[in-house]
Amino acid sequence: MRMKQEIRVIRLSERGYRDLRITTHCCLVTRAFGGKEIFLSEDTDHGIQKTIERISHEFGGDFKVTFIPNTIREINKQRKEGNVVVHLTMYGEKPDNTTLAKIRKAKKVTIVIGSEKVPMEVYHRADYNISITRQPHSEVAALAVMMHRLNEGKEEELIFPHARKRVIPEKKGKRVEKVGNDES
Amino acid sequence: MRMKQEIRVIRLSERGYRDLRITTHCCLVTRAFGGKEIFLSEDTDHGIQKTIERISHEFGGDFKVTFIPNTIREINKQRKEGNVVVHLTMYGEKPDNTTLAKIRKAKKVTIVIGSEKVPMEVYHRADYNISITRQPHSEVAALAVMMHRLNEGKEEELIFPHARKRVIPEKKGKRVEKVGNDES
Repeated sequence: MRMKQEIRVIRLSERGYRDLRITTHCCLVTRAFGGKEIFLSEDTDHGIQKTIERISHEFGGDFKVTFIPNTIREINKQRKEGNVVVHLTMYGEKPDNTTLAKIRKAKKVTIVIGSEKVPMEVYHRADYNISITRQPHSEVAALAVMMHRLNEGKEEELIFPHARKRVIPEKKGKRVEKVGNDES
Repeated sequence: MRMKQEIRVIRLSERGYRDLRITTHCCLVTRAFGGKEIFLSEDTDHGIQKTIERISHEFGGDFKVTFIPNTIREINKQRKEGNVVVHLTMYGEKPDNTTLAKIRKAKKVTIVIGSEKVPMEVYHRADYNISITRQPHSEVAALAVMMHRLNEGKEEELIFPHARKRVIPEKKGKRVEKVGNDES
């Protein structure tokens, strides 16, 4: 199974160098929950791309990591291309069922996740400012829960093409299966 | 509203020093999604407790961060106390509705989240080994999605007692309200 809705993520960050582990988790979550691409600020350590490519090489999929000079300009660009822009922020609206149903109707969604200081411009450019719990926690968590809700849980059924390895669910233990070429 | 089910989290870690930001996110997610307490390895930077206490002081709740010398012994201890132990691992079973319904019946749940190398003992001690997506991603994300699913989304209705501040959902902007003493 593949996702019908195309989800892209833009990670705003003025300090890519500091939050490298968090940024890596954001990339992996976007991929695992069926997103197509994540956009990172140019100043992020480019080594992150190799880490993610290595994982896609093993576990499949066509997920992309793209570095861009100006993350806010990218929001405007994707919005002009018809994407519905959803900014995840502690200060946003509740993710109620009506709002989620509207967002699910969009063919292409851009989820924007921030770091500590997000310029007010982003709140105004976004089609929706959504808050997962209105409590301070984690952009990784907010992204995962938002994607899970948009997907209606279908990330659990995803099949990643060209995978060389696949995890076989186990009650007690670890089982990883090699995937033959005929399937890729 | 408060959660009926008591959720505690144990974070296994042999390298608390390295993953401090990730551990902080794990604490904040546990709190925001209605968990009662998180247990961290003694070797984790104790400054994390102050960070979390400062947030609880502002945004309310009785969430606790507890340091323990032996995280695996803590799993056994909580299991003996009647908690259902759920270990989140990439290699576990799918979180299907039947399994989740069973876990929801427990009065007390202990969610165990790991770092890279989790001893096999943990897989055997856990009542359930659950995998969110069978793809490599993030313990922060897995924890949030698991809590969201156990809560059936009720974290969105949580009220944190003794809060001094509360975020008021906004379509475009930031609004934080001071909470009067009469409510605390």
